[in-house]
Amino acid sequence: MSQAALSYAESKRDAHLEDLKALIRIPSISGMSDYHPEVRRTAEWLVTHIRTTIGIDNAKVVEGVALPLVYAERIIDRSKPTVLVYGHFDVQPIDPVELWKTPPFEPTLVGESLYARGAVDDKGPTLAALKAVESLLATNNLAVNVKILLEGEEESGSESISAYVAEKAAELACDYVLILDTGMIDKDIPTITHSLRGMTYTEITAKGAKGDLHSGGYGGIAPNPIQALAWVLSDLKGRDGHINLPGLYEMLRPLSDEDRAILQRQSDERGPAMMAAAGLTSFPGEKQYSPMERMTSRPTLEVHGIVGGFIGEGSKTVIPAEAKAKVSLRLAPGQDSMKVYELLKARVKALAPEGVEMDVVLLNGGEPLLLPLDAPVLTIAAEAYGAEFSQPVEYVRGGGSIPVAALFDKHLKAPCVMLGFGLPDDNVHAPNEKFHLPYYYAAIRSCIRFLHRLGA
Amino acid sequence: MSQAALSYAESKRDAHLEDLKALIRIPSISGMSDYHPEVRRTAEWLVTHIRTTIGIDNAKVVEGVALPLVYAERIIDRSKPTVLVYGHFDVQPIDPVELWKTPPFEPTLVGESLYARGAVDDKGPTLAALKAVESLLATNNLAVNVKILLEGEEESGSESISAYVAEKAAELACDYVLILDTGMIDKDIPTITHSLRGMTYTEITAKGAKGDLHSGGYGGIAPNPIQALAWVLSDLKGRDGHINLPGLYEMLRPLSDEDRAILQRQSDERGPAMMAAAGLTSFPGEKQYSPMERMTSRPTLEVHGIVGGFIGEGSKTVIPAEAKAKVSLRLAPGQDSMKVYELLKARVKALAPEGVEMDVVLLNGGEPLLLPLDAPVLTIAAEAYGAEFSQPVEYVRGGGSIPVAALFDKHLKAPCVMLGFGLPDDNVHAPNEKFHLPYYYAAIRSCIRFLHRLGA
Repeated sequence: MSQAALSYAESKRDAHLEDLKALIRIPSISGMSDYHPEVRRTAEWLVTHIRTTIGIDNAKVVEGVALPLVYAERIIDRSKPTVLVYGHFDVQPIDPVELWKTPPFEPTLVGESLYARGAVDDKGPTLAALKAVESLLATNNLAVNVKILLEGEEESGSESISAYVAEKAAELACDYVLILDTGMIDKDIPTITHSLRGMTYTEITAKGAKGDLHSGGYGGIAPNPIQALAWVLSDLKGRDGHINLPGLYEMLRPLSDEDRAILQRQSDERGPAMMAAAGLTSFPGEKQYSPMERMTSRPTLEVHGIVGGFIGEGSKTVIPAEAKAKVSLRLAPGQDSMKVYELLKARVKALAPEGVEMDVVLLNGGEPLLLPLDAPVLTIAAEAYGAEFSQPVEYVRGGGSIPVAALFDKHLKAPCVMLGFGLPDDNVHAPNEKFHLPYYYAAIRSCIRFLHRLGA
Repeated sequence: MSQAALSYAESKRDAHLEDLKALIRIPSISGMSDYHPEVRRTAEWLVTHIRTTIGIDNAKVVEGVALPLVYAERIIDRSKPTVLVYGHFDVQPIDPVELWKTPPFEPTLVGESLYARGAVDDKGPTLAALKAVESLLATNNLAVNVKILLEGEEESGSESISAYVAEKAAELACDYVLILDTGMIDKDIPTITHSLRGMTYTEITAKGAKGDLHSGGYGGIAPNPIQALAWVLSDLKGRDGHINLPGLYEMLRPLSDEDRAILQRQSDERGPAMMAAAGLTSFPGEKQYSPMERMTSRPTLEVHGIVGGFIGEGSKTVIPAEAKAKVSLRLAPGQDSMKVYELLKARVKALAPEGVEMDVVLLNGGEPLLLPLDAPVLTIAAEAYGAEFSQPVEYVRGGGSIPVAALFDKHLKAPCVMLGFGLPDDNVHAPNEKFHLPYYYAAIRSCIRFLHRLGA
């Protein structure tokens, strides 16, 4: 009976909040090396907490390539399903710190919102999943095997966990992965993310003359690497949003009519608000597809940064020797990040104009992910999670990427269940991050129900 | 007779060198405000020198908008021609200072080269012109009216002289302008620059959403200002070097067959060395025109700098709200910098893609300049200057711009005679700047002959 575990959780509301506050108070910024001791301290705090409070005494710090991981497992019966619970305990930097209205690492409750860096991303949801395990263990109701794998580098590249999952796939073997690190499309709308895009993130370098030239001496006869980048970027993507990379669209897994209808509905529902939030009056791009289809289920190419030549104040008539651009493709289910990288690299080199050498370096890659809507685990998750809300569960395809989810998909071949507890206005990665506190408790209860039903 | 003046100059070789060294020792870097007192000290040194040594006692410091000018005049007879001598006494910064082999502001003679910042650009040639006036005055041979106008902001925008020439055109009225601030195409080849390009230098700004967006949330539906710049830059200039700016080429003054033949010959002679110097194996661009024609007598469009989005190490999936590019057109005789700016601005705005607002701000403008090869003063200058060399005078069109020359052309309507005494390897604007010292004396003698013959 999950009721006992739910009652336990109810009785522990205050303690569970205090535990969350304690976890938040450790400033575990993984992207700044000065804070790495704090990331390690957080890992140690979690190990102690899992041993003494959650109730799994084999919890341990696992040394990673860079920062440590936390691992624990409770195997109750090898014939029962195994759930791997994933979360991350590192946080984003706090700059610009002057915009915070409360101290970033002193959790502060204002109304129902708990303000602090890491509150919603991802300490609150991560601890909620652990608190569900605690509640089930404390009441002798845990009916699945649980493996807990937490990382401290989600905000800075996930290097350690990537190596660990690839190496320890056998030890991490599981039937399902539970991830609480996504959002809800709006308040009180339970949201399960069942698809994510992959990514091929590159840096394109264009090199011309052996040194900077003066346009008075070489203007009109020397190659210009910035102009070369403009030509190539323009050739790669047309004004209609179409990406001119032969082979790219052929890899795409077609959407069903049902998928497409959902995306059209979501576009109608969410499009205007998204447009307003960005200060836009239209969504330029592939007009023949709905905005949500483009944003979640079509490959897209974006230039994220570009730099070359003289960028100071005033004028300088240099023809630079080099220019660079950061260019990524978001990939939809069916597309392979390495294959797309090879296509892009070959295409850019072929498009390089006379006198300019171009190279494409892969900075980051990740595969798209898709859990079909008819997967049985989704039904179980939706029941467990939907019980908290009066509105029906919304299934969304995410436009972004969660590289670790693709990693689990690849190495563990286990479906990732992603239950969202973050709100669009939670200021993730920004000043005044917050967590809607009722969702902390809802997350605990949802996970109790989900784990309980999986073991039933 | 110029012989007396030439003999005087010969007798003063040592003194003239010491005067140059004294002038060089004042570190008059106009681009760094810490050195502005030194620029002023240089102006004061010149005023004293012109009064006591050159022999014009009305020399004065003229306060400019920013840094001071130096002015002096000797009117001998209003029926005689008047020559305005221009030069600049400010210098470039000395960074990277560790690459200098001798102290930058301690003139050091190594063989025939005098090493120091400002030695050739432009203290040596400027003082040489003054020494010619000194030699003519000292021997009672000055037969033209002389006006001397020197500036201390040539390396930092020429703001003061620009305002001064526009305001004082009547007082500065002259028949010819003598400028010693150009180069020779090779050692011992006397080089007269008779044409310069103009310039329209702009900054193009592209603005999309009201703030930076995340490509996970908006990739495929939001406008991307970097991509927009790529489209527009690509539309503005084709891979064939043609600038797609309707009206631009129509303004161009056609070249004569003779002009074109000279440019073809110079391309054949100088092209391979220029290619090698830049580490290039070809000159991409408008292949139907010779390289020297393209570089000096065709308009060209170059992107000098570009910046937008994330340019740090690693990857960040931002869709930036804004991107900028510095774009200039070099203009050939016949083209008007403001008209070209208006054409460019209108065209860029017309090419801006959906969702992106683009603006074009003029940072800098200057007009092209052309002294036709059959101008009588060129013949006089070539005789006076060519007497120093065994090879015939080469007439070149410059690809760059000397804004002050265009200014004299516009406000004083006087032809600019530009005699070159700098060598291609003089390291202008770079560490180890030098002046081939024999050309200091050759410059003094050339100016003595030129001024003498103009008054004959």
